[in-house]
Order: sequence, then C-alpha cells, then structure tokens
Amino acid sequence: MISEEKPRRKGGRTRKREQIKNAVPVHHPPLVRKIPIYEVLNEEGVELVHDFAMRVLEQVGCDFRDEESLDFWRKTDAEIDGQRVRVGRDSLMELVGHAPSSYIQHARNPERTVKVGDGHTVIAPSYGPPFVLDMDGERRYATLDDLNNFQKLNHMASSVHIAGGPIVEPVDIPVPCRHLHMAYSGLKYSDKPIVGNVTARNRAEDTVEMMKIVFGEQFATNHTVTSSLINGNSPLVWDSTMLDALKVYAQNNQAVLVSPFSMTAASTPASNVGTIGVVVAEALIAIALAQIVRPGCPMLFGLPSMTVALNTGAPVHGSPDSAMVQLMANQMARRYRLPHRAIMNVATSKCVDIQAGYDSMWGIMPCFLSEANWLTMSGGLIEGSLTQSYAKTLIDFEQLDAFYHFAQGNSFDDLEEIFETVKHVGPGGHFLGEAHTRKSNLFIFPSQNNVTYEQWEADGKKDSARVGLDRARDWLNRYEAPAMDRSLDQALLEFIRKKTRELPKTVT
Amino acid sequence: MISEEKPRRKGGRTRKREQIKNAVPVHHPPLVRKIPIYEVLNEEGVELVHDFAMRVLEQVGCDFRDEESLDFWRKTDAEIDGQRVRVGRDSLMELVGHAPSSYIQHARNPERTVKVGDGHTVIAPSYGPPFVLDMDGERRYATLDDLNNFQKLNHMASSVHIAGGPIVEPVDIPVPCRHLHMAYSGLKYSDKPIVGNVTARNRAEDTVEMMKIVFGEQFATNHTVTSSLINGNSPLVWDSTMLDALKVYAQNNQAVLVSPFSMTAASTPASNVGTIGVVVAEALIAIALAQIVRPGCPMLFGLPSMTVALNTGAPVHGSPDSAMVQLMANQMARRYRLPHRAIMNVATSKCVDIQAGYDSMWGIMPCFLSEANWLTMSGGLIEGSLTQSYAKTLIDFEQLDAFYHFAQGNSFDDLEEIFETVKHVGPGGHFLGEAHTRKSNLFIFPSQNNVTYEQWEADGKKDSARVGLDRARDWLNRYEAPAMDRSLDQALLEFIRKKTRELPKTVT
Repeated sequence: MISEEKPRRKGGRTRKREQIKNAVPVHHPPLVRKIPIYEVLNEEGVELVHDFAMRVLEQVGCDFRDEESLDFWRKTDAEIDGQRVRVGRDSLMELVGHAPSSYIQHARNPERTVKVGDGHTVIAPSYGPPFVLDMDGERRYATLDDLNNFQKLNHMASSVHIAGGPIVEPVDIPVPCRHLHMAYSGLKYSDKPIVGNVTARNRAEDTVEMMKIVFGEQFATNHTVTSSLINGNSPLVWDSTMLDALKVYAQNNQAVLVSPFSMTAASTPASNVGTIGVVVAEALIAIALAQIVRPGCPMLFGLPSMTVALNTGAPVHGSPDSAMVQLMANQMARRYRLPHRAIMNVATSKCVDIQAGYDSMWGIMPCFLSEANWLTMSGGLIEGSLTQSYAKTLIDFEQLDAFYHFAQGNSFDDLEEIFETVKHVGPGGHFLGEAHTRKSNLFIFPSQNNVTYEQWEADGKKDSARVGLDRARDWLNRYEAPAMDRSLDQALLEFIRKKTRELPKTVT
Repeated sequence: MISEEKPRRKGGRTRKREQIKNAVPVHHPPLVRKIPIYEVLNEEGVELVHDFAMRVLEQVGCDFRDEESLDFWRKTDAEIDGQRVRVGRDSLMELVGHAPSSYIQHARNPERTVKVGDGHTVIAPSYGPPFVLDMDGERRYATLDDLNNFQKLNHMASSVHIAGGPIVEPVDIPVPCRHLHMAYSGLKYSDKPIVGNVTARNRAEDTVEMMKIVFGEQFATNHTVTSSLINGNSPLVWDSTMLDALKVYAQNNQAVLVSPFSMTAASTPASNVGTIGVVVAEALIAIALAQIVRPGCPMLFGLPSMTVALNTGAPVHGSPDSAMVQLMANQMARRYRLPHRAIMNVATSKCVDIQAGYDSMWGIMPCFLSEANWLTMSGGLIEGSLTQSYAKTLIDFEQLDAFYHFAQGNSFDDLEEIFETVKHVGPGGHFLGEAHTRKSNLFIFPSQNNVTYEQWEADGKKDSARVGLDRARDWLNRYEAPAMDRSLDQALLEFIRKKTRELPKTVT
C-alpha cells in the first residue's frame, strides 16, 4: 500500500528544511499505562453491578427491532416474546466469552497498525458533529473540506492513533453518498487505521468494499481493518439500522464499538450505579448477538456517559457523575475481558472557554486513569458534541500528550545520578545547569503561555482559543499527505464514482 | 463569639426573602473521601523516596540561616557545621513522630471548626497574589477592598472551609501594618477558621495576639486557631524570616504548613522522584525543628509543585509532572502520618481561558484523588499565582463542589428500588418522571450552559469568564456578614490602631 516512489536526493537547505518538516509528526505507539488503574468499585461492587445487569436481561429483557436479529436469537435458548429478548446469564456469558479481549486493527501503513485491548490503548478522533467553529470564529455547518482538515490535524497529532469516520459531518455532501467520501477522506489524508460507517446496511457494506480495495479481499475479510460505532437506544432497545451495521461488520470480522446511548436520569436510572447496570445489560446482549453472527469477531464495550440536567432536560457532558460511570464501565469491561471504549473530550460549553476545559477534563481523566482501550473524541468538541472547534482541537491534543506522559509513571532508574547531583548542587544552589537536568523529559504544554504578563501583552494578549487557532493554521500549512499509491487512489475514486452513479439522480 | 442579638420576627414577604437568602451559603463539612486513594508509588517506591531523603539529610544536610534555630538543633545529636545541619534518620524520625496526624482548628463560629488530617480534608483560599483581574476585566494591583471581597466570596463558597490570609495582597496598605488588616479581614468577613501571617516575627506575634482577643488568651494558647504557611528556599535552605514565623507559631501551638518552594529542574532535580526526595528532606527537617521548639505542635507537610519550562526558565503551574509530584507527596505524608497540604487550583494562563481550566485541573485532580488534607488555592488564581481573577474564582468554586460530590463515591443502597424502576420503565421508556428520578442528587455545574445554541446566542453569547463575573457580582450583592459581637469588633480595631500608632510615621 505504501508509495513505491523513491525519494530523490536533495541538497543542503532543501534537505535541512525537509528534515525539520519530517521531525513532525511524531507518532506515539498505543499507550501501555505504567500507572495504577484507578478503581472506584471493590469486587463486591463489580459483582452487584453484574448481577443487576443479568437480572435485567433475565427478567426485563431487551428489544431487538429487527427480524433477522430475532432469527439469530431463535438459534439460542433465549426467550423471545415479540421483539423482546430475555436471555439467561449462563447463555449470555458463554456468547460474550467468544469476543476477544484484544484485536489488531490494521492500517494501510503497517507502521500505524495498532493493538486494541489487553492493556493497549488507542486514541480516536471526534465523531459526528454537524457544525464547526471555524477559523474565523464562525459556527456553521461542516463541509467535506472541514472533514479533510480534521483528518489532517488528527493525522499529525502524536497521541492520536485512529483516523476516518465523521470527525465532522460533511453536510455539503448528500447523505446517500456521504459515507463514501468520509471513508475516502480518512484513507487519503491519514495512513492510520480508520473508523467505518454505520448509518445504513449498504453504507456499512460499501465501507467493507472500500477496505477490500485497500487491503485486498482476502486480507480484509480475515483481518480487522475498521472499527465502527453503533449506538443503542437506551433503555434496552437496539434498532434495525444499528443492528444491520453490527451484522455486516461482524460477518466481515470488523470491530464494532457497542455503545448504549445512556443519559443518566432520562434513558437510564438517575443513579450512576443504576446507569452502569442498565448499560452493561444493553451492551452485553448486543455483543452476544454479534458473537452468534460470527463467533470471535472483535467488539468494544462502552458508553457516552452523559448526565441529564433535570432543570432543562438537556444532556450534559462534563460532570463528576459521568466520570464515575466511565470508571465503573472500565471495571465492568475488564470483568468481561472486553476492550473498553470511553469518551474523552466533549465540552457542554458553546465556545472555547474555561468551562470547556473543565468539562473536557471530566472525560479525559477517567479515560486515562482507567484502562479504557479506545478513547474517542481526541479533541475539539463543544456544545455537547454538536460542534467541532478548530481552536479547541489543537489545545486538546496537548492534553492527550500530557496524559500520555503522565501514564508513563515514575522512573527510579536515575536515582543515584540524582543523589550525586543533589550533593553537587548542595543547599542554596540550583539545578538548571546540571548534566542530569539537561536530560530532562519533563512535560511543558506548548500552548501554555509562561512568559511575563508584559511580554504576553506586547504579543497581543492572545488567549488560548486564539493560540489554538494559530496552531491549527500552522499545522494545516505544514501538513504533508502520507504516501498513497496512485493506483489505489484511482481505484477508491472509481468506486465512489460508480456507487454515486448507481444512486437515484435526485440525491447526487 | 457569636452575636447575642436576638433575631427580630418579621412578616410574610420579608421573611420569605430572608429564607431564600439564608438558603445560601451551604457549608459542607470537611471532606471525608469515600473513594479510593490513588497511589502512584508502590511500597518499595515509598521506601526508596524515604531512603533518598534520609541520605540527603545525613550526607548533604540543610542550611538554617537563623542562629536561634541552630541553637535548637544544638540540643540534639545533629551535626552542625556553620549553618549546615545534618541529622541522622533515627533522631529525625523520632522528632517528626511528635507531630500529630491531625489537629482541630477552631473557628470563631464553633460550627465552622474543622479537623485537619486523619482522613479529614479542608479547602483554603488563594494565597499571595499582588494583582487582581477585576470586575471590569482590568489587571491591577489588589487593594484591601478586593481582599475583603474575596473573603466574602470564599465565605459563601460551600466547599471552602478556611478564611483569612492574603487571598490577595492589599497593596494599598503599607507593609508594616498590612498583616493587621489581613487578619481583621478574615475574621470580620467570615466566621471560618483563618490563615495567619508569616512575613516577620512581629507580624506572626501580632496574629497570635489578635487570636487571643478573639478566643481568649488561655484558649488561644492551648488550641489551634490559625494555620500559617512557611516556604523553604529549595534546595535545602530555611531562612530566618520563615524560621521566626515557624518558631512563634510552634511556641503558641498554632499549625504551620511547611512548604519547600520546589521548582522541578531549577530548585529541585529535573525528576519527579528526585523532586519529592529533596522536598521530603526539606520539609521533615523543618517539622523536626518545630517539634524541638514545642513537641506535639501541629504541622502540615506539602509543596507548591511547579515545573520549570527549560525554554524560558519560567515556573509553570499545571503539568502532568507536578500532578505526579503531588500524588507522591501525599503518599509520603501518609507514610509519616502527617497531614498533607496540597495546591489545588493555579493556572499559568494570563486570562480566564480554556488553558486556565486545564492548568487548574492538573492541580485539583491530584488533590482530590489523593488524601491531601489541606487544599489551598480554592479558586481564581491565574498567571502562575500572581493574579487573582474574580471571574475564575466563581467558576473554580463549582469544580470544588463537583469533586466534593465525586468523592462521595457510589451508593448501592437504592439498588432494589432502581431495579423496580427499570422493570416499570421497560425497554423504550424513559426515567424522567419516575419517583426514583425525582430523588436524584446528580451533579450539574450551575455555570455550565446546557440550553440550545440559539438560546445561548439570544442571551448574549456569554462565555464562562463572563458568567463567572456575573456570579461574582451577584454573590457580593447577596453577601451577608456573619454575626460578630460588637465589643470583639471594637477590640480588634483598637488593637490595629494601637499597633499602627507604634509604627514609624513614614509607613502609616
């Protein structure tokens, strides 16, 4: 898949410029935490949640609004009553047990291929906002250009491992062919593993077809080359659109992120424990279905974790309760040996303000302190995930780098060298000039302004929203597309043209 | 100390208005965490840091730039060489062992009296900024009016337990009598326990005198009625000003927060482990000195935890490394059974922007996830602690409430009621109208805007810095002074007048 063009040799200044350019992006491998996992439930708590979820599936059941899915359930000892499926804990856990605890997702550039689960964590972009807060500070509908831009920015982000998907919805592209352009955007502007489409059965199938073009038919059927998100309708309903996508991807051994759409106090109980209990039930029964479709196909367990503000009825991102739910979700995922997908970085704020930072941190913190394996929403989301901000994207990326650094934990390897340095510096001295200090790998936020107030004032009193915008412009200027073989590019574009021609005239 | 005036009975509307007013402030008791403590060091790591600190004090030593302190050390088996003190681990640990693992700090209103340590945590205001970012968005020198305002705001904050101290420096008051007005400000505008002054021996003594006026001579000498901060000069130096304050407060059984002024990579090694090793040495030897002065006097162990940006040489607040240092500091404090003071909420940002939120969260998070007992900087600090922002203060307070809520952990008490509710709601239903939902105590940020974008736009597109300002104005309008006996007020003012008269004419 990699370009076979040989680089031409270049002279002095050009080479140096290219070396500097090539210095970015740095690509961090999937995170393997060296810090302890923060657990908010003890073993008894985990088993109480498990038992609650099992009782929900045994006594209340879950609705599958899809005949084909019900047919799959009829192959088991589940009790079917209309669309309602009730399943006993032994059968359920046996099915769930087929899902692997980790999987490899291949990228078109093999160096970007990642392991997800079993202690390995990847970071994925935003998902689904129809609006952007653009370079001019205007909130408007997102376009394909915006999507391409955000693919580029995520491609360049050192701590982002995944590309593709609707980082923003390209609203200027008609819905019936939008998925084709979204898949192309992710494949073209990044060489990281990609997220697939789920909005209709044929769109999931098209995604699989495009991946076969990239990886070859046989490879793409036996290996995982996409991960795709399906949302449940909490409480306890899975609809046919999502189930179609689930079945298509499962049949093709592609990973599915099974995500009940919990809104605590509205679609799930007004309790963090109650919410996680219902969500576990919803997720496990969908994962079980996929394992009937194709035993062993890769799955992720997770939820968006919002709390509903009872004064307005609005769901909010960024709250201590949703952080608690995320931490519990991780413990439950680990109990079932399933990779865990968590939502990292969404602000309820309408703009890039201090509350946006706090809101986001309530998502980022549990993502990194737990052992969640697929951290979605790498940066930029405001307005409860309706709007993607260029400025916030760049500021948020630095928080990912910071947590990546934090998760490396502490090193005692240089303790004796440090002791000798302390002896050498002595009381009243300073460490700035010491050899040990020069090897420092302490983390400093690139966008954090630490000059004097007077200097900051002279530089135009830029707040960090402005700094983020400047950085977004700078990154897009410096972006270099990863190599893509011309024939592959042509084949993908031809597939898009063909599929678009097949659509009714009215929509193209 | 409480006003003995009887409240007059009032009629209908007046009473109702007063009831609403009296509904705030809510005062949370000191936090007792029901969540697990997040530990980043294993037992071996804790002992490696301990051994490192002991070797520093045995082999390198610490300078005490104060003859009286050296005389105290001469009463022990420490090795004195000029100002350098080296002390063996057995002697040191024996002295440190006299410091209590918790203490009671009394407030002039007994209902606000707090326990600090042994699982009990209090929150204290900002400390020391000479500037304010004021109600008009202007950065200027702080005045006594500002200090009084911030006393009022902290008094009203439900999760703030402590008052007094230089929440801002009242720069309009001459230095020699500033401490008198600072102490009065804390005592007058709040009835919570207060922070004392440390900038000179006589100022510490004046603080003690004023507390004797409030509590009576005997009570104030036998009980702890102030906690005061002394900063070390890292690496490994304690100066006479701070030692004078330490001795005065220790002699009077008042609590001292012993805080080496670590700046990782400049005043301490460029390593989180190395930093905590040096800081432990610095703090323990000062705590040991206080225990020679008065065995059993209450102490807190802590550090400001900044990282130096090697590109500018500037110390920054808000970094993953300083969060790591704070978490380790808590583990070391617990090893020594000392109450731990941590710094919560300081932004490096120059304004109230998204980076300010992120910066602050890197301080707040380790404060609450560890078992730190005295969390200073309740809200408002920007510019690396040089400026106190009215707007940020109010936004930050909500984060304290959120973490206070988070630290209550999970409840399983209502699990059966939740299960019955899930059965009742069933697949596809919703929980909003359920009896269980109406009892919800989920946390929603008051300043987090969760209305539609269009509504937000129509309301003036206020960012959260603006919302914070509006709230600050509103709180100050609604502030009601806690009762203070008129004779006590007069006695305090008379003491200030007397002390001011005794000062040379040039400074008053």
